[in-house]
Formats: sequence, structure tokens, C-alpha cells
Amino acid sequence: MARSELFTASVADHGGSLARARALFPNAREPWIDLSTGINPHSYPFFDLPATAFTRLPEASRAAELAAVAARAYGAPAGVNVVSAPGTQILLPRVAALIPASRAHVLSPTYAEHRRAAALAGHDVREVTDFDDLFEADLAILVNPNNPDGRIIDRARLLSLAEVMRSKGGLLVVDEAFMDVGPIAESIAGDVGQGGLVVLRSFGKFFGLAGVRLGFAISAEPVARLLEDGLGPWAVAGPALEYGIAALADTAWQEGMRTRLEREAATLDAHFARHGLPVSGGTSLFRFLRTSAASEVFEIFGRYGILIRNFAERPHELRIGLPSSEQEMSRIEQALQAWSGTSAPDLDRRAAPLPLPAPSPR
Amino acid sequence: MARSELFTASVADHGGSLARARALFPNAREPWIDLSTGINPHSYPFFDLPATAFTRLPEASRAAELAAVAARAYGAPAGVNVVSAPGTQILLPRVAALIPASRAHVLSPTYAEHRRAAALAGHDVREVTDFDDLFEADLAILVNPNNPDGRIIDRARLLSLAEVMRSKGGLLVVDEAFMDVGPIAESIAGDVGQGGLVVLRSFGKFFGLAGVRLGFAISAEPVARLLEDGLGPWAVAGPALEYGIAALADTAWQEGMRTRLEREAATLDAHFARHGLPVSGGTSLFRFLRTSAASEVFEIFGRYGILIRNFAERPHELRIGLPSSEQEMSRIEQALQAWSGTSAPDLDRRAAPLPLPAPSPR
Repeated sequence: MARSELFTASVADHGGSLARARALFPNAREPWIDLSTGINPHSYPFFDLPATAFTRLPEASRAAELAAVAARAYGAPAGVNVVSAPGTQILLPRVAALIPASRAHVLSPTYAEHRRAAALAGHDVREVTDFDDLFEADLAILVNPNNPDGRIIDRARLLSLAEVMRSKGGLLVVDEAFMDVGPIAESIAGDVGQGGLVVLRSFGKFFGLAGVRLGFAISAEPVARLLEDGLGPWAVAGPALEYGIAALADTAWQEGMRTRLEREAATLDAHFARHGLPVSGGTSLFRFLRTSAASEVFEIFGRYGILIRNFAERPHELRIGLPSSEQEMSRIEQALQAWSGTSAPDLDRRAAPLPLPAPSPR
Repeated sequence: MARSELFTASVADHGGSLARARALFPNAREPWIDLSTGINPHSYPFFDLPATAFTRLPEASRAAELAAVAARAYGAPAGVNVVSAPGTQILLPRVAALIPASRAHVLSPTYAEHRRAAALAGHDVREVTDFDDLFEADLAILVNPNNPDGRIIDRARLLSLAEVMRSKGGLLVVDEAFMDVGPIAESIAGDVGQGGLVVLRSFGKFFGLAGVRLGFAISAEPVARLLEDGLGPWAVAGPALEYGIAALADTAWQEGMRTRLEREAATLDAHFARHGLPVSGGTSLFRFLRTSAASEVFEIFGRYGILIRNFAERPHELRIGLPSSEQEMSRIEQALQAWSGTSAPDLDRRAAPLPLPAPSPR
């Protein structure tokens, strides 16, 4: 398996790069199916943008409208609590720099950019696996629901952590990048008013428009103004403003999409389970597998022109995005058949699901 | 003139806001003509963007292509010297933070965001009016050609300043936001290799696509990597990537546009001069007037539905962008006639051009 190991070690850090996929699997079936991200394959419907969205500087009044619509969609107290940015990513170092360099704990494993951003802001960063270890930090960071395993921390526990952070002048950062698909009762976007807490929301994932670059920080008002000062005027592009305002206000589309993604995630799970690969977590925007066969599955999928997400540091894990169509689901089924076909004669090679780490105490 | 003064004091800081214009002049003629920015009214031709520019995360390989094309267009040493960002604006505080907090001198008056960004990065900021005073700074900032007066510092003097900054571990920042319309011989985008120098270029102004948000920092390679680390992946939106690659490679369009803008700027100057308002500077993307009649001209233009740029701190200055059509030029002519009509009976009210400040010694 030397060749496969080489492949798995050099895969893109965050998924989503078909150029790298083609370099890894030059003889793969085309067109590539990219399941390496957690981006909704059913994007919000395109509409004609006014030419001025491209030609003019974005209007401050339109940006304020976006903030107001986003506040309603995310359950934030008000538009003044919402900072719009060209993607959540660009906010991470600025959010981490909101408190002086100190101890940052990141609930891990999770999205790797949080660790990097906190280090960039000068913090002494520790990755912790137990929620309770976050209380010792000055900057506590977690993703909820978590990427890639979908682990959820409930709101009551988050609020107690926020309270501790606030009381010592620290900061809790909750990245709710995938909270659009729930469980919405655990969102703390409405609880930012007292300070000590920043909630991040991502537009591109749930609305399937990752290319427009739009993300939000939700916080107490003084912190929101600080973050905005750091971005300066016209941070969000015209097309992102227009799509943001339309899509975030379209609650009917959002409701329908949540139901659709749940159903499609269940179908995907059934396909994997039928081939001895039980899905052990995730959200309706991506599924998570822990299996000793991860690198084998990754490689066979790659040969079939299907890019899924593996993790250099955790070779038994896979994250799989949702396919866009029945046709794509058929190609997944073919890859799964190829995998179970190759392993059928030799039952020892059959994937044994690995035990999940014990959940942190409630 | 109390009413007029009230109006002029509350105008948008950077121009470009029609919502604020409508609030200032509720009875103005519609549609508004926005001449308050230095954005080319003849935008690069629209083309169909691939759906993936909106739906997918921008590809790293496509971003590298943009950097390479930008390097060629701007005369930078290579693509590795170019950092692409969602607008130059968002780069300003990060560029100012490249050196430890110290003495920042901004050659003024100029684009106000440089002062703000340097202060945000912790510097002790001084606005200096003499180029030679920049040598005393640790962070020297200037715009070349300057906004709003079009003043040009030649390359030889800039290189001597860069050398001094480099030798003391300081930094020279040259914002070449309007250098697309020249004089290109004074650009120092090709001179960044030795360090101590960051050149900023703006995509949206010359290409008339300010809404897509695209700007560049050009620097020595280690500094470029630092800036990129601070932005993180996917900083530039898909539409900006696609327009950037196409437009920056289109040298024929660029050449033709330079000639066209020069001609149109000359026509605009002639209209103003005919009414006793001689243009005293600027670039082919905006014209600059120093006149005692500035606030009167601003208000009459406002009533005619033409937003031009005034400056709260410098009440005798105006900046006027280029109109997009003959039709818009006619409306400018009407406003000019209204202005000279009201002032004709009373020659004392006729604008006397103010003397320009003495140029700094060569």
C-alpha cells in the first residue's frame, strides 16, 4: 500500500481542489465528482445580478441590509451584532486577535484553520479533546456541529463556558459553519449580547455558493465595530451582497433544503452501510466515517473519479460530501461495489468500524 | 450658505454612496450621475462566468494563475511576489502591521484610509506634506499618482526612500491604485525584490469593476507569504478571479482604454475651464479642482443629480470622476451653466482658482 499512503499524505488540506485531485489520480474517470467538501451541491438558484453589483463599490446601505437579514436568519440580536466578511476564513485571525496573546484551546480534532489562526495571532495553542479542558483557556475555540465528526455540544454547556470566559476577560469562539442544518436549538448566535463570545456563520456552505465568499461574525456590538474597523469599507463583494440578501431572507428555500439534505444524507448512509461501511457521524452537509479501510476507500474512490476527504493525521477517518444527483450516486455505488468486490474474497480486509472515542461527559 | 455647509460636512468619506447622495439632495434630478469616485465608468466587458465561479471554493491553481497574470500586467518580478486580496482596502492594516508599531508618516493630503490603517496597526501616525519628511519615518506611506491631486513622485526618489527604509528595517508603502493610467515609468512594482517596499495595486478602478473586490500587494517573497498567511485560503472570490485573469491579460483593451480615458479627461477639463473652473490636477480616472467656489459647485451639481467628491477638511477642493457618456457630459454642462449663470451677475462670486501649494523640492 506504499503508493496509496503516498497519495493520502499529500491531499489538499481542506478538500475542494480538483486540480490536486487530477494530479493524484491522473487516470481517474472524468468528470470528477467532488465530495471532498461540506458544500451543498444544490446551490441557491442563480438570478440575474444588476451590472452595478460588479461595477460599483458596494453601497454601505446595502451592506447594512445584509447584516439585518443575516441577523434574522441566524437568530442574532440585531444587524449591529453582525459583521459581514468575504468568507469566514479571513475573520479567523482577527477574531483570535480580539484578546491579547494568551492560552488558546481548540476542541479537536476539528477544522485546522482555527489552530493556525490562533497561533498567527500570537497565542499559545493547545488542541484539547475534552470539552471541559476549554475552561482553562483564555481563548476557547470549537466548531458546533463539529467538522468532520458532527459532534454537538449543547447550548447550556456553551453558555456556561461563555460565562467563564467573559468573567476572566477571555473569549469563546463558536464556529457554527454547519449550524444551518441544525440542531438549531444548540445555536448560541442569540446569546452574544453580554460579550465574551463570538459566533461564526458561513454563507457559502449551506447555500452552495462558496465562490462568492461570504461569512459572518456575530458578537456584542463593540466587538462587531472593532472587527469591522479591521476589515474597512467594502469588505463584501457586490455579488455576495446580492446573493446574501436574497438567500438569507428566503426561509421557504431554507426549510425545503434542510429536509432535502436530510433525506439525501440518509440515502448516502444507506449505500455505504450496505457495503459494510457504516457512517458514524457528520451533518446533512457531510458524512463522517471511521474505518480501518479509510485509505483503501479513498484510493478506490479516487480511481473512480470521486474525491472524498481524508486526513493526513488521522488515517482512519473519511469525510464525504453529498452528491448532486442520482447519476453521481450511481458512480458512488459503483465505487463502493469495486471496494467491496476487491475485499469480498478476503474477509480480513473487510473494514472493521473503529470504536469512536468516548463522548465527553455531559 | 449655512445649508450648503451642512451638506458638505456630512458627505460620504470616500464617495460612491448614492444612498447618501439621495439623502443630501432629496429633490435632485434622477437618475443620479455618480462622479464621486475614481472608478472607470467604462467597465471591462462582461462575459459569462462559469457557474462554478459562484458555487465552488476558488481553486488554488486558478489563484496562482491570477497572481502570474497580475505580475505581468503590473511589472512585478513574478507571481510569487503578488498577493491577491478581496480589494486593496482589506490589505492596508495588514501591510501597516508588517513592521512593529513605530513612526508612520503619510504623505498628505491623500486617501484617508492609509492614516486610519496605520493607526489601527498601532503606529504613531503623522501626516506630512513634504516628501523629504518621509525619510524620518519607519513606515512611509504615499499614493502615486496621488489621490486626489494627481501629484507624482518619480521613481528615482522613491527608490532612494525605499533604500533608506530597508537599511533601517522600516517599510515604504506605495499605493499605485491609479498607476494603470500612468505615468508607468514611475511605477516601482518591479523594484520590490530587495525588500523594505510594498506596492499596492487596485483592480476595480481602472477596469471599472469595483464591486468584484480585487486588489494586490506586491512585495519581496517572504513578505508576500506573510500577507497570504494572514488572509488564509480562498481570499479572492470566484467572479473576481475570473475577471482578474481575463482583464489583466487583455493588454489591447488596456491600451485602448488608456487613450480613451485621456481623451475624455481632456474633454471634461475643457467643459470646466470654459466656465471659469480650471482643472489643476488629477489622473485620467479623476480630475482635481482647487477653487474658492468648491462648496457652491458641489451643491449645484448635487441639485442637478450629479454627485462629485468634496472634502470636509479641505473645503476648496473637489474631485470629479469621468462621466460614462455624452448624455452625462450634457448634464454636467447644464450644471456648469447653472453655476456660471448664478454667478455671472456678480463677478466677485466668480471662482478664483486658489494657488496650489508649492511643489516639494526635487
